[in-house]
Amino acid sequence: MGKNLTKRSEDYSKWYNELVQKAGLAENSGVRGCMVIKPYGYAIWEKMQAQLDKMFKETGHENAYFPLFIPKSYLSREASHVEGFAKECAVVTHYRLKNAEDGSGIVVDETAKLEEELIVRPTSETIIWDTYRKWIQSYRDLPLLINQWANVVRWEMRTRLFLRTTEFLWQEGHTAHAEEQEAIEEAELILKVYASFAEEYMAVPVIQGTKTESERFAGAVETYCIEALMQDGKALQAGTSHFLGQNFAKAFDVKFANKEGVQDYVWATSWGVSTRLIGALIMAHSDDNGLVLPPKLAPIQVVIVPIYKGLEQLDAISARVNPLLKELRAKGISVKYDNRDTHKPGFKFNEYELKGVPVRLAIGQRDLENGTFEVARRDTMEKETVPEEAVIARIEQLLLDIQDNIYRKAADFRDRHITRVDSYDEFKQVLEDKGGFILAHWDGSAATEERIKEETKATIRCIPLEADTEAGSCMLTGKPSVRRVLFARAY
Amino acid sequence: MGKNLTKRSEDYSKWYNELVQKAGLAENSGVRGCMVIKPYGYAIWEKMQAQLDKMFKETGHENAYFPLFIPKSYLSREASHVEGFAKECAVVTHYRLKNAEDGSGIVVDETAKLEEELIVRPTSETIIWDTYRKWIQSYRDLPLLINQWANVVRWEMRTRLFLRTTEFLWQEGHTAHAEEQEAIEEAELILKVYASFAEEYMAVPVIQGTKTESERFAGAVETYCIEALMQDGKALQAGTSHFLGQNFAKAFDVKFANKEGVQDYVWATSWGVSTRLIGALIMAHSDDNGLVLPPKLAPIQVVIVPIYKGLEQLDAISARVNPLLKELRAKGISVKYDNRDTHKPGFKFNEYELKGVPVRLAIGQRDLENGTFEVARRDTMEKETVPEEAVIARIEQLLLDIQDNIYRKAADFRDRHITRVDSYDEFKQVLEDKGGFILAHWDGSAATEERIKEETKATIRCIPLEADTEAGSCMLTGKPSVRRVLFARAY
Repeated sequence: MGKNLTKRSEDYSKWYNELVQKAGLAENSGVRGCMVIKPYGYAIWEKMQAQLDKMFKETGHENAYFPLFIPKSYLSREASHVEGFAKECAVVTHYRLKNAEDGSGIVVDETAKLEEELIVRPTSETIIWDTYRKWIQSYRDLPLLINQWANVVRWEMRTRLFLRTTEFLWQEGHTAHAEEQEAIEEAELILKVYASFAEEYMAVPVIQGTKTESERFAGAVETYCIEALMQDGKALQAGTSHFLGQNFAKAFDVKFANKEGVQDYVWATSWGVSTRLIGALIMAHSDDNGLVLPPKLAPIQVVIVPIYKGLEQLDAISARVNPLLKELRAKGISVKYDNRDTHKPGFKFNEYELKGVPVRLAIGQRDLENGTFEVARRDTMEKETVPEEAVIARIEQLLLDIQDNIYRKAADFRDRHITRVDSYDEFKQVLEDKGGFILAHWDGSAATEERIKEETKATIRCIPLEADTEAGSCMLTGKPSVRRVLFARAY
Repeated sequence: MGKNLTKRSEDYSKWYNELVQKAGLAENSGVRGCMVIKPYGYAIWEKMQAQLDKMFKETGHENAYFPLFIPKSYLSREASHVEGFAKECAVVTHYRLKNAEDGSGIVVDETAKLEEELIVRPTSETIIWDTYRKWIQSYRDLPLLINQWANVVRWEMRTRLFLRTTEFLWQEGHTAHAEEQEAIEEAELILKVYASFAEEYMAVPVIQGTKTESERFAGAVETYCIEALMQDGKALQAGTSHFLGQNFAKAFDVKFANKEGVQDYVWATSWGVSTRLIGALIMAHSDDNGLVLPPKLAPIQVVIVPIYKGLEQLDAISARVNPLLKELRAKGISVKYDNRDTHKPGFKFNEYELKGVPVRLAIGQRDLENGTFEVARRDTMEKETVPEEAVIARIEQLLLDIQDNIYRKAADFRDRHITRVDSYDEFKQVLEDKGGFILAHWDGSAATEERIKEETKATIRCIPLEADTEAGSCMLTGKPSVRRVLFARAY
């Protein structure tokens, strides 16, 4: 009863693509690079959204919504921003179709050409800062702490379900502040929120740091990021938070009067995480049997499968199961009773393993007689027999244990895959043989960074926030360095 | 201390536009026809979304997400669908910008032209049915009950905040069924969900009915709708649910094997409500002092304003207010304590009236001494003094009363504005003098419907579901009619 899933050890990339589709998370659409997020995948996104939204609101942010389209001229206002985004954007040029005169179908109506092209937002700094100019006059209007849940489009050449798609769903926070330091603290606060979410909810350990200049967001003064490690030893950037300085305020002329009545430009941040997090979740925990989901984000936390012959047995089982369903739901636990008579128990077991349901209960004739349930946990695949009266407490404990266990497993793996190297040869060797994160000295120049990237495909993932200063010399050039930075090959 | 709000009786349309902006709900953006939904307006949308989403899930629907873009060729597949949407759509033709060679800025890169143009979805039937072809093989795959929360774009020439915008937010349900009757029942079920939501949450009474052929959704066999009446006597279509027959299944070749193994086309429905509902909410209840929000959808249900001189008094008041905040929040009541020292109580009273907060508490020195609160309700502007120990029960009762009262007020108004007429002269007279809904006989022909629309600007809003059959003759042509239909001028 296999899932016909390619093994991770055989072809990690193929395993990922198969899993995403077989588990019913997402699939490619008829539109190049755009995915369809299927109900089970979307349910995970809803859980992520609900928790993140709560965390944003608890830290004083409000949601709003800004237009999908950005006039071309807006994009040009911030020089490095347009440089970063103009090359990969969807451009709306017309607003009408018509029937072709030769009867061949519908064609663009050339008379309905826009005076100024509209860009489908790749990110919303420009349209939002154009709006903030109207909202901000005085220090009393600050800080402005706004988040938006939206779809964005970046014309990616090579796409991959969840990890890199032309259209994706995300949240983008855009805040405005009177003081530089306050804006920096906001960007750092959000980094902490993202890190907590990744570790406590996704059960994915992350390293917090800042990007090098060449990896910064287009238009940012500083980009903070969280970096996670996948099971194939490649890194994945899971979220970024940017301190934008006064760049967008200057580009869109957003000034405020401070308490002394003096005009100054506003300080800004922006920050986002996307449906890419679902890719990270899958790749961090899942195994050759399918998804392994952290209980806190699993759409179905517990599934109950009856094993029966005939309607009478099913009725007896259901009579035992129904009060349990009620009690579990009252405790806020999401439970599914799969009593379909169109599929056999083995098929169902397989399906819920594939879908990563954390806890599976089975109940058959013998359990009925003994007053027990068979309880299986997805992460370790262990089974045990639990007396009926103890089953709810056991489920509650298991949900906590699984959340904890998969975090520890991922953290152990990550820790075993952080290697300190002191020579470029060793660096290349570790990249080939072991993968993972590498801590090495770098001379701080973009040229060295670029050469390492070209020669090894490894990039500087971040300059870790928690790293101690440590005198050393660049592994490539031998020039002096004051701290190690974090390298990896990445998604 | 006025709000500088135009009176409804002076200029209803101006009152609406001013109110939307002054209450902080939405504003126009730099992109033609696209609005910015501001935090307070978006908070109302979040409340609407949460409740509707719950109702959809309780009726067995799941959420998913489909691409923003629709290949031009998809749109052409269903003949009447393309006819309805091709004239008003945003067309993506290119995927890159570049620096102009003459240094004049950024321009469209003509070498990055799409082979096939992409349409920004005006609605998603085509892309979804193209996907359903892959998901549906057998009757076991049915019904498929899916909803999507998304943004859509329709290139409207005349736009108005919330009521008609180029981009708007909505939900669109798309279901697939094995049986015709089951699909019809689904479309009707959703109509009931929409009507319950409008009446029980928005406190807006609606008339349920079906559209005439000429007013049907492009591609539908039957369009069900809910129609509400605004305070200026104009109707507003608040939601539609379509029975699509096998039209989209045939256009996208979606067949299934039934229990007997025979292949047949799938039956479909689609249904949606949008941010337009916020417009309906505003226009149904609000008054010359500002918004009047139903407690069930108000982002802030209770506001508490301290009236004090000096920090000592404020501290004493806060000591009284803080436990109350805690108790109200524990009961799930959304409460704001506005202790800003930058604004005077009168300013705050004004602001919360403008924002339609259902219940306002004020507490000053005398209340402190007497152990009381001043409690004001927004709908009737009545004030009362309530002893501290009774205040929570009073608030709970008021929230129920206000919800009920504004519904009854709107229902009374609506009922007083349904007029039965038997002649075309009377019809025109009522339209001019009184407005509102008019029940009249119609001969069932599109020609008559069109002539009435041209001559009076009134349209058939619906053929009410609950209307009795009643023999009569068409008010315009004198031809026989079996039931009255509902006319109105509409938004």
